[in-house]
Order: sequence, then C-alpha cells, then structure tokens
Amino acid sequence: MAQGVSEFELIKKICDGRSDPDRRVLIGPGDDLAMIKASPPEGSMQVDDRILLGVDQLVDGIHVDLDSITLEEAGRKAVCRSLSDIAAMAGRPVATMASALIPAEWNDEQAMALFDAMRSTASEHHAPLVGGDLAVHKTPGGRLACSVTVIGAPSRGGAVSRFGAVAGDGLYVTGALGGSWRSRHHLDFSPRLAESAMLLAILDDRLHAMIDISDGLGRDAAHLIEKSKLEILIDGATIPCRGDFTVRHAVADGEDYELLFAASGDVPMALGGCPVTRIGEFRECGTSSRSTVLLDWKGELLDVSCAGWEHDST
Amino acid sequence: MAQGVSEFELIKKICDGRSDPDRRVLIGPGDDLAMIKASPPEGSMQVDDRILLGVDQLVDGIHVDLDSITLEEAGRKAVCRSLSDIAAMAGRPVATMASALIPAEWNDEQAMALFDAMRSTASEHHAPLVGGDLAVHKTPGGRLACSVTVIGAPSRGGAVSRFGAVAGDGLYVTGALGGSWRSRHHLDFSPRLAESAMLLAILDDRLHAMIDISDGLGRDAAHLIEKSKLEILIDGATIPCRGDFTVRHAVADGEDYELLFAASGDVPMALGGCPVTRIGEFRECGTSSRSTVLLDWKGELLDVSCAGWEHDST
Repeated sequence: MAQGVSEFELIKKICDGRSDPDRRVLIGPGDDLAMIKASPPEGSMQVDDRILLGVDQLVDGIHVDLDSITLEEAGRKAVCRSLSDIAAMAGRPVATMASALIPAEWNDEQAMALFDAMRSTASEHHAPLVGGDLAVHKTPGGRLACSVTVIGAPSRGGAVSRFGAVAGDGLYVTGALGGSWRSRHHLDFSPRLAESAMLLAILDDRLHAMIDISDGLGRDAAHLIEKSKLEILIDGATIPCRGDFTVRHAVADGEDYELLFAASGDVPMALGGCPVTRIGEFRECGTSSRSTVLLDWKGELLDVSCAGWEHDST
Repeated sequence: MAQGVSEFELIKKICDGRSDPDRRVLIGPGDDLAMIKASPPEGSMQVDDRILLGVDQLVDGIHVDLDSITLEEAGRKAVCRSLSDIAAMAGRPVATMASALIPAEWNDEQAMALFDAMRSTASEHHAPLVGGDLAVHKTPGGRLACSVTVIGAPSRGGAVSRFGAVAGDGLYVTGALGGSWRSRHHLDFSPRLAESAMLLAILDDRLHAMIDISDGLGRDAAHLIEKSKLEILIDGATIPCRGDFTVRHAVADGEDYELLFAASGDVPMALGGCPVTRIGEFRECGTSSRSTVLLDWKGELLDVSCAGWEHDST
C-alpha cells in the first residue's frame, strides 16, 4: 500500500460519502456485490429485473506475481475471484466483462493467452465474457492490470447480503482455510457457486448472511458484524485448516474464496463433496461496545477482527 | 502502442476467436456494447430482461494527461466516454462500476477527488456508481489506470447496433468534429444520451445503425460497414468542423463523442439544441470488393477508412 492511502478506509469513505441515492439501487457499495433494478425508476417492479454487479482488479505485483505463474493462471484467477462474489450473494452468474492494461513488452500471443484464459474460465462458469477493453502501457516496465466486472442475477428470494446475522446464529465455513498463496490454492480454486446455490435451497431464509473469504477469516468475519451490535466467538479448535497450515494461517492468510456464513437451525455438514464446518457463533456485544471477532485459542481470547494476530502461539 | 501488438487487430482476434456462444448473448463483443439476456438460459424471454454492457479504460498517458488536467476532469471523462457507448446504442443508462489503480504517491484526497468526480458524473446521467475497486501501485511512478463498466437498458424495440445500414441510407453526424484534444472538448463533452433517445423516437426503425465517434470519423464510419458489402461516400464540404479546425482534423482526430448514424428518409436537422448534419451516403461496393470510406474533398476521392489521411491538402 502507498503511504497515506489505506484502501479499506478509503473505500469506506467513498461508500459512506455517497449522496443522491437512486431508488433503483437496492444494495449499494459495501457488500460483496451491488444489486440494482434495471427497469426505469418510474416503473413498478412487476418483473424480476434485479441485477447483481461487482468489479475486482487483478494487478501483477499485488494480486498475482507473473514471475512465478502463467498468464493462463492469472486470467483464470481474475475471473474466479469476481465470480466468488456472486457465490457470496447466492446469485447466479450471467456475464463477465474484462479490461486489461498490458505491458508494452508483450506480443499478441501473450495478450491472447490472457484473454483466452479469462474467456474460457468465464464460459465454464456460465458467465460468458461479452466485452473487453485493451490498452498497452506507453512506457517499458509497466505491469499487467486487469479489471473484471461480473453480472449476476439474484436468487428468486433476493440476494444474501453480508448484514443479516442475528444473535444465536452459528458461523460456518466451507472447505478449508489457510496457506492459499503457498499452496497455490488462489490459482486453482473454483468459485463456490454450486455450493452457495445448494445452501440457499436447503436453508432458505435461515441463511442470514454470507461473504466469501478473501481478506482472511478474521477480517471477513468482522465484515459480517459491521453494521450490527453483535460479536463473533470463533472456536479455534474447530477451524478446518488446509493441509499442514496452522490456525494462524487459517485466520489471517486470506484468498481462500470459501463461503463464510451465518445461519440458524440445522446446517448440512457437506454440500456435494464440499465439507461445511461450524466454527463459531454470533452473540450480543458483551461489555465492550465495539463489534469484535474473538478467537478462542488454547484458553486465550484473541481479537482477530483485523486479522493481525499478534500472538505468537500457533 | 507496444511493438508487435495492434490493439484493433488484437481485439478483433479476441472477438473472432470466441467459442461456445451462449444463447443469452444477444450482441457479443464487437459492437459499442454487448447485449445479454439476464434470465436463465432455459427460461423463455417473457419479460424484457435485456441488459447492455460495456467497459472502457482511462489510462494516464494514453487517454488523458494528468500533468495538464485535473482529477475531476479525468474522473468525468472516464465515465462520460463509457456512457457515450450507451448513447451509441440508443440505450438508457442504468448503473456504473469503476475500478482504479492509483499512483503510490497519491493521498486520500486525490483518490477521493477522482471517485467523487466519477460518482457525481454517473449520478448526473442517471447511472449511479454502485461499486468500485481500488488498488495502489506498489512501485513509485506507476500512473493512474481506471476501468469503467456501464450497464444500460435497450430501448423497447431493441438496441441500435453498428451493423444495420443498407444501400441508399444517409450518413449523419451530431454536433461538430475535430480538435477534441486541443479544444479540451474530450474533457467537457456531454454524452449524447438525450439526443439518441430523441433520434430513436423520431426515426424508429428508419434508424438503421449508430456508433459514437471515438477513433475518428474515418475509422468509425468504417466500423459501420465492417460486416457489409457497402461503401460510404462522405462529402467533405458538408462535414461540420469544430471552431477553426479543418476537415482533416474532423476526419482523423477522434474523441468527438458525437453520434454517427445511418438512416433512411427524412432526418431532423436538429435534436433539441444539437445540430444534425447529413455528410454522406451508403452505397453498394463499387469496383473494389473491399468496403471503404471514401472522402470527396476538392475533387479528389480519398480513402479515409483508416483515418490516416496521408494527403496534405486541407
């Protein structure tokens, strides 16, 4: 990050500062995706014309390192991380748009390899790549920057936002967490689209809130209680860790692209072949008035809301 | 442009090479915008759930020069050039998404100024900015790169694509052309959304094809006959030039963001306060089998399909 600019703080400012709310904006900035109504503002909502929209960048040197991965892997990741946001809203993919600013040193084949990977990945997930824009760095040394927009449709009942958890809900996660970069999981994960559709079909209105884990379990759990008077207590012993990675990694690494959700009542232990684990619960804020994510680990209670797990025992 | 990479050729390759066409893709890459059907592929098209989608980048050093313009102007242009594509399809704006990769040297205020300009411009044109993504260059010296996605709704009768002109149609242009950079028109133009809606209301199915002029009159006129056996004859004496700029500028400069369209029958000479000028006509290809845009200028017939007007008389 640059000095002076904190991305999270800035995005928050940009979102909070928005004025002139349009009646067609059903979910604005601040969730996994926005939801809009496509029909004219004056029209009545007789048909389901709601659309989910999200955009994510993939920048060489920040989100990937092109010195150690292929262009196919970069293109695939650019699309999958955006589609993961559709899964997080329990939506259905509709289409994808991609723009890329490519290095001046690239040849046609390299640009084609990138776009082909984006196109085939998008197509594989039934979100056809319908448009793109290409620009070339004017000066040598400029690195690849992609921007991928996904368009989705919410489920019939509406989108599952980040903000519906209530006290007493369990906190659940799909798959396993931690070590995404070292295990290359961030390059070969599949967005949990089928799993989130199954989850919604099974739980229906007991599925209260959902997010995909990109920033890390600690920080993304904190997003689920951002606008609430709730806190989360995670039982460290129950967290499913990827391979040999530790709980520390599972809590703070991020880029897992697993579903993290709040639900009441019985929750299935698997969705297809994908395990689901209960790792904690939501409760009313205790003595502290701040919403925090607490990790119960070997008898200690750690605040992991910022994923900065300062403690050194793993 | 980088050595070896021709953006036009590459985008063409990327579009031509697409496989697995999805039945929901009503207009794919290659037009001003894509048009998709948002309902499930198996569903029948009972409701008008068609969406227009387009993405454009704005890169410092390519599309703007931040040494000589403000961040407000850059943000405004980033949104307006994308909205101009909605005008070109005679669509209605619905929403906007923006991502930005910003210089490491920027502070919060600079990033806010950029996003505020994008938000207020989008809002002014009834296309609320509903989502964004921000990343910061890791190394000093990296320049601003924005990507703006616009979402629109087609008119009731469908979108006006680039490819419907027939022999005998007139070629028309709104406003005046040429010298967009030197006159700073590219920073303060307003996308021709109202004009294109009026045009469609008046001409209805006599409005055969439309594009907005970004690459330059010559090249954009060539886009209108790309998939046809037509040629275009432009009468140079009729081209409306901006201020003191010459026909040479009007043909080749680009970034006018005016509407260029093919229509049959009578066409109004103005839309609101915006003049409309007939500058040429479409006809069957002559002796040459290649579709060309010919400019009749002072008795000479020049091929301006590639906007590279090599001739030196202005």
